[in-house]
Amino acid sequence: MTSKTEIIAVGSELLLGQIVNSNAQFLSQQLAENGLNVYYHTVVGDNPARLEQAVKIAKERSNIIIFTGGLGPTKDDLTKETIANILGKKLVTDEEALRSIEDYFVKVKRSMSENNKKQAWILEDSHVLKNEHGMAPGMAIEADDRIYMLLPGPPSEMKPMFIKFGLPYFREKLGQNDKIISRVLRYFGIGESQLETDIQDLIDAQTNPTIAPLAGDGEVTLRLTARHQQEAEAVRLINEMEKTINSRVGGFFYGYDQTTLADEVLRHLRQSNMTISAAESLTGGLFSDQLTAVKGTSDVFKGTIVCYTNEVKQSILNVSKETLDQHGAVSEQCAKEMAEQIRKLTNSDIGISFTGIAGEDPVEGKKPGTVYIGLACIGQPTKTVLLHLAGNRNAIRRRTVKYGCHLLIKTLLENTAE
Amino acid sequence: MTSKTEIIAVGSELLLGQIVNSNAQFLSQQLAENGLNVYYHTVVGDNPARLEQAVKIAKERSNIIIFTGGLGPTKDDLTKETIANILGKKLVTDEEALRSIEDYFVKVKRSMSENNKKQAWILEDSHVLKNEHGMAPGMAIEADDRIYMLLPGPPSEMKPMFIKFGLPYFREKLGQNDKIISRVLRYFGIGESQLETDIQDLIDAQTNPTIAPLAGDGEVTLRLTARHQQEAEAVRLINEMEKTINSRVGGFFYGYDQTTLADEVLRHLRQSNMTISAAESLTGGLFSDQLTAVKGTSDVFKGTIVCYTNEVKQSILNVSKETLDQHGAVSEQCAKEMAEQIRKLTNSDIGISFTGIAGEDPVEGKKPGTVYIGLACIGQPTKTVLLHLAGNRNAIRRRTVKYGCHLLIKTLLENTAE
Repeated sequence: MTSKTEIIAVGSELLLGQIVNSNAQFLSQQLAENGLNVYYHTVVGDNPARLEQAVKIAKERSNIIIFTGGLGPTKDDLTKETIANILGKKLVTDEEALRSIEDYFVKVKRSMSENNKKQAWILEDSHVLKNEHGMAPGMAIEADDRIYMLLPGPPSEMKPMFIKFGLPYFREKLGQNDKIISRVLRYFGIGESQLETDIQDLIDAQTNPTIAPLAGDGEVTLRLTARHQQEAEAVRLINEMEKTINSRVGGFFYGYDQTTLADEVLRHLRQSNMTISAAESLTGGLFSDQLTAVKGTSDVFKGTIVCYTNEVKQSILNVSKETLDQHGAVSEQCAKEMAEQIRKLTNSDIGISFTGIAGEDPVEGKKPGTVYIGLACIGQPTKTVLLHLAGNRNAIRRRTVKYGCHLLIKTLLENTAE
Repeated sequence: MTSKTEIIAVGSELLLGQIVNSNAQFLSQQLAENGLNVYYHTVVGDNPARLEQAVKIAKERSNIIIFTGGLGPTKDDLTKETIANILGKKLVTDEEALRSIEDYFVKVKRSMSENNKKQAWILEDSHVLKNEHGMAPGMAIEADDRIYMLLPGPPSEMKPMFIKFGLPYFREKLGQNDKIISRVLRYFGIGESQLETDIQDLIDAQTNPTIAPLAGDGEVTLRLTARHQQEAEAVRLINEMEKTINSRVGGFFYGYDQTTLADEVLRHLRQSNMTISAAESLTGGLFSDQLTAVKGTSDVFKGTIVCYTNEVKQSILNVSKETLDQHGAVSEQCAKEMAEQIRKLTNSDIGISFTGIAGEDPVEGKKPGTVYIGLACIGQPTKTVLLHLAGNRNAIRRRTVKYGCHLLIKTLLENTAE
């Protein structure tokens, strides 16, 4: 069948503008990449009569109807009940989901209120989509030549459920034989318009694979998507296009798919068998937070001194009073000493430092956006980098950390190449 | 009339997931604050037949229909044409809009292509909403006891147009003299279902003010919205409801509107004239990052040691080898020493520490989700708190920081009360 998909988000918080319907965007992207046509998004509140009407309209004009939200424990959560009524199906308890909900409450040592059992209800005869990141399971059911899929509202639960269980369900039902392979190429240090200019002829001529650029927060990505009956051939098409693109802009390429600059730093550290520590002034712990947000960081990351005051820079980090008096905290000299001192204090192979001005006012006669990064590698002269960044306080802090990560990756790659 | 508002966004880029429907969120917020009920959002592509169908459905169920997008110069931009057909209205050129479009092209020294004239077309008899940030004007028209409003798609044009011309149009048409006041109450440490249970009778009986709960990332908020001809009376209604609600759940209340737990920590520190430092193991810099993301933190926050390894806990933070050997890094004793040592090392009034297990595997015989927070205040016995948190690695880290902030706020409030 030709897919005519409608995404119905259920939740009054959307109609009050408290949250944006990012679920519809995510699902639309995923469905488009997998060749399903999305014709409508609908948002309706936690109101059974209006939800019922919306479902009836969707039945008339769509043959795949995906719901997000309204699977929770409260009285307001009515998606399952409403669809059960319309399809003439019963709601039954899914024992596996119930056990996992009970386990959750045992784990957090809280008593489970009765209404939580409702989260384990599913439509009879439906295919359960397991919730590995929350309590309420999703489900899919075929009825009246249509497919109905119910997904939870919180994006942290909905997204992984849809990728792992929802998409495969559709692919099987719709008998999609072409293999679709996607790969995201990630770039840092090049603007979106520059990157697009450099590969404009490839973008204009795209057929298979397709090339979709996206920019955000100082990074640019290209999503390559190829389809072919043979998976190996789809992969070959992508490999070839990647090679052509990176022969032009490969100097700014840093990784694939969902990786982050922090992930790549950790990967290269492990490959080089090196340890790192940081001294953070401007960035206030953000660099360390990004490294430690990744699992198993402790084999390469030792620790950080967040030295937000000159007092801490001197007393704990041992930056010399002379440096601070003569050059100031936002200076090449201070960045250098911070990197060297943290490396020594923690007995690490690499010390990295961040100092600069993120606020709106000049400090020590230097303009906002002035940033120094110091990088001390064992057995090498200490490097420093001066940046002039634009943007608000948090944009400057985030960009600084990204530049630091990019500098680390380049340095670790050079070390390996030597 | 009672408003039943529907927002229809027109644009295939939304259905492909290339952009998120932030216009619907913005309009919903504005409309809610001004007392208009939004019952539906619809997104439809640049397809005249499907757009026509969507408008017909909206006419059946809504009496205010707001369109965004599809007012531009290209063939795909069909909103005006479609609505003109449905309402049986002609499209006429708005001379003022045409002049402003022509002026624009003169200003940027580009020649104006013929299709740009289409942007100056308006529905006959409609009220023009001037576009001060782009070319295509918006418009509003009453027909069949309904109000239709057409707004441009780019948020940078739509938002200022709606605030300056769209809202006043509605207020006049609907004869709204009422002042509308909103206030968000923020809670931490209580689940959404528990909070709702505690105030269910108030929610069931709500009229003026209304009470809208929302949960996210471990926090729960209640938005109170009151309306009255006298602003002072609307404020009084909100004050009274807040008092009633917080007589029941005030122990979990931490602040108003857009504030965060980190903001409140900083505010209470300033009020108490106290300084703070942190020792972060589990949280890896996240607590410090959240404090330093706020402007002007350096008057109360001195610094942090991120002690991700036991080596750094000993060598820089001076946690005793005995404690680490006998009790382990994830222990009450270690949390206590970490908090006390960072306070002393940095000469701060308060030291806070975070240690625990965010990964999936037990450490030192303790389960994932086991977290200790230590709090050393000058002149007081050191406190420790043991938490059992569920969720993935980053959920545990984020919740831990929130619990730490909440503990700080409570402690600072108690100190003030003494």
